[in-house]
Amino acid sequence: MIAVNSERLMQSLADLAQIGVTSGGGVTRLALSDEDKHGRDLLARWMRDAGLEVSVDDFGNMTGLRSGKTDAPPVLLASHIDTVVKGGKYDGALGVMGALEVIRTLNDHGIETVKPIAIVNWTNEEGVRFEPAMQCSGAVTGRFTREYVYDRTDRQAMRFEDELRRIGYMGEEANRPLPASAYLELHIEQGPVLEDANQPVGVVGGIVGITWIEVTVTGQPDHAGPSPMRLRRDPLVAAAEIIQSVERIATMEDDIAVATVGRVNVEPNVINTIPGKVVFSVDFRHPDGDVLAGQVARLEALVEHVCSERNVIGEVDRFWTSEPTPFDQDVVFAIRASCEELGLDYGELWSGAGHDAKYMADVCPSGMIFVRSKAGLSHCEAEESSAEDIETGVNVLLGTAMKLAG
Amino acid sequence: MIAVNSERLMQSLADLAQIGVTSGGGVTRLALSDEDKHGRDLLARWMRDAGLEVSVDDFGNMTGLRSGKTDAPPVLLASHIDTVVKGGKYDGALGVMGALEVIRTLNDHGIETVKPIAIVNWTNEEGVRFEPAMQCSGAVTGRFTREYVYDRTDRQAMRFEDELRRIGYMGEEANRPLPASAYLELHIEQGPVLEDANQPVGVVGGIVGITWIEVTVTGQPDHAGPSPMRLRRDPLVAAAEIIQSVERIATMEDDIAVATVGRVNVEPNVINTIPGKVVFSVDFRHPDGDVLAGQVARLEALVEHVCSERNVIGEVDRFWTSEPTPFDQDVVFAIRASCEELGLDYGELWSGAGHDAKYMADVCPSGMIFVRSKAGLSHCEAEESSAEDIETGVNVLLGTAMKLAG
Repeated sequence: MIAVNSERLMQSLADLAQIGVTSGGGVTRLALSDEDKHGRDLLARWMRDAGLEVSVDDFGNMTGLRSGKTDAPPVLLASHIDTVVKGGKYDGALGVMGALEVIRTLNDHGIETVKPIAIVNWTNEEGVRFEPAMQCSGAVTGRFTREYVYDRTDRQAMRFEDELRRIGYMGEEANRPLPASAYLELHIEQGPVLEDANQPVGVVGGIVGITWIEVTVTGQPDHAGPSPMRLRRDPLVAAAEIIQSVERIATMEDDIAVATVGRVNVEPNVINTIPGKVVFSVDFRHPDGDVLAGQVARLEALVEHVCSERNVIGEVDRFWTSEPTPFDQDVVFAIRASCEELGLDYGELWSGAGHDAKYMADVCPSGMIFVRSKAGLSHCEAEESSAEDIETGVNVLLGTAMKLAG
Repeated sequence: MIAVNSERLMQSLADLAQIGVTSGGGVTRLALSDEDKHGRDLLARWMRDAGLEVSVDDFGNMTGLRSGKTDAPPVLLASHIDTVVKGGKYDGALGVMGALEVIRTLNDHGIETVKPIAIVNWTNEEGVRFEPAMQCSGAVTGRFTREYVYDRTDRQAMRFEDELRRIGYMGEEANRPLPASAYLELHIEQGPVLEDANQPVGVVGGIVGITWIEVTVTGQPDHAGPSPMRLRRDPLVAAAEIIQSVERIATMEDDIAVATVGRVNVEPNVINTIPGKVVFSVDFRHPDGDVLAGQVARLEALVEHVCSERNVIGEVDRFWTSEPTPFDQDVVFAIRASCEELGLDYGELWSGAGHDAKYMADVCPSGMIFVRSKAGLSHCEAEESSAEDIETGVNVLLGTAMKLAG
């Protein structure tokens, strides 16, 4: 059984991490920035050095194709090299550099696969500079129109299309990385589950469904002093009761369900004024869409009950839902088999965050491999994974790619 | 028994309310603004027309003195004509126009009191433009130095002293309204207690003690998706539990204690991120300083308990306290007697908000009369009190002033 070269892999990751390096040891390489351009230039050079045919599509998605024995659609090994502000050095980069190391390893051993294998670097996965996230996998799989993507603007009102041209990565529609035989994405876990279970890698069953809700509680703003407790209509105390119960909605379901209140805005937010209005978000995630719907119903009943008891007005607005995406069973099986061949104690989990694999699952058999994150941290400079776990993850990617490409 | 002229009183209130009138029927007359100057000019003219000797001190506090049979220190009838932004037409103005109507009524009936009576218009009671509140009663009673007050700046970096000179109300230290035989302040209640009890006026027992606390709860920020509930250290759920219990700390005490969480700031306050830090304020008020201290101790124990259970860090900072101020028993008795002479069903309550009377109580026998507020609203354009209640309140002020001035 062949294996990747860990030293070469870690060196490529380290070299890429120098582009946009931050004082805290993280990376800021926003989509279509100068740093993104320099990262792309380096990636293109490395792909060409590895004998790949490099092409760029009309969203700047980069593909490096390695021919197979047949002209079948390629097996894609993909992720992204853009980052958030002060992000980590492996989020996204691991999937692209891991794919490059798979190609280099196949080259080292002179292995020709039946189907072609291609590396894909997706443009603007993070969606930090140009919202929303997963924009260009969404575009090639039909979620977003080209006009929509081109007209996205950043905070300085710079357009996506203009910035894509500026950095020299406007390519041809014919170069979109589809059709594909299969899609594989290696990524850091971004959560604490594998670390908690003491497992280096995880087989990802799918991407959970997410629903976002805004709850508005309206009461009667008043001076903190002259208003006796029994005459108050305080929306914050009602909101506090609801926020506590949101946690219970998840914990009573099972140990996979998560529920988060991340944003709370209080009006007028003054120390000596009873609030008049509290608006907060609820984020429910679960692999089963029916469970999500049940959680929303429980939240609605809860808000009605608490607000009626406290004589305040509650409104629940479920304004966005991303349906659960189970991955292809054959791809999941191939990843699992690769882990077993390596004799690994691997985990089985669902991704709680979105990835380009979510949209790709619409159009071809897809799957993901997670690598253990230290303390579950990501989107921060302290994001970390060990070289051993990274090597293990890329070996799983290699084994799976070889199985899927034949 | 003589009585005030309600029509004249309401006309003066209406005329003053035109200065700084807002589109919503309220008043914006910030301290030392052009509107404040015009209001002061009108007041000075009315005081002179009523035969008063008008003087201005080195903080712009205006005094209109009506001589008595003796040269004893005067009985002061005082409040303020400055307002908050989009405030009401009676907050402060009622006390000054009510005092003016008392003088006019005494003039109508040719009554000469033993002690002099003086109207005082305090500068910058609200403290909205130049913080803190009750600034110039605080200055003449020794709470603040002249330098401190003069150097206060507004959001445009304009200094108090410069603005006081600009509007032409810089006067002499010798004109400070002290010493005084007694101090009386008529004010709208700014709360719902009298309305709830169906009483037109209230005798104020004192001004409650206030203590302000900042609670900081620090946990572990993380992605909402990949973090299982059991591994989270979410400071917001802990804060929500504490906020609910803050309410209970007040309600379990008695029906006078109030506790308010008015300000909540969540970091990073993003829909799909478990918060890392929550900072919120707690405002406790009670007439008894020992009760306040007990409430703070209960809050500290609560924060420690909840944060330890949830593996987050809680800090409690009691950063400001205003001690309770019981009013003079003779003055309270005189107000009560005046209410009884008028055959009123009056209330007895403490002020939950600060007033200039708080500082004056340090230096002379002081008391306050409250007039019922519709729906308890104040510091807003919808602030309202009925002409009947206003007339009743000013008649109580008249009766009390005559008792105290002899």
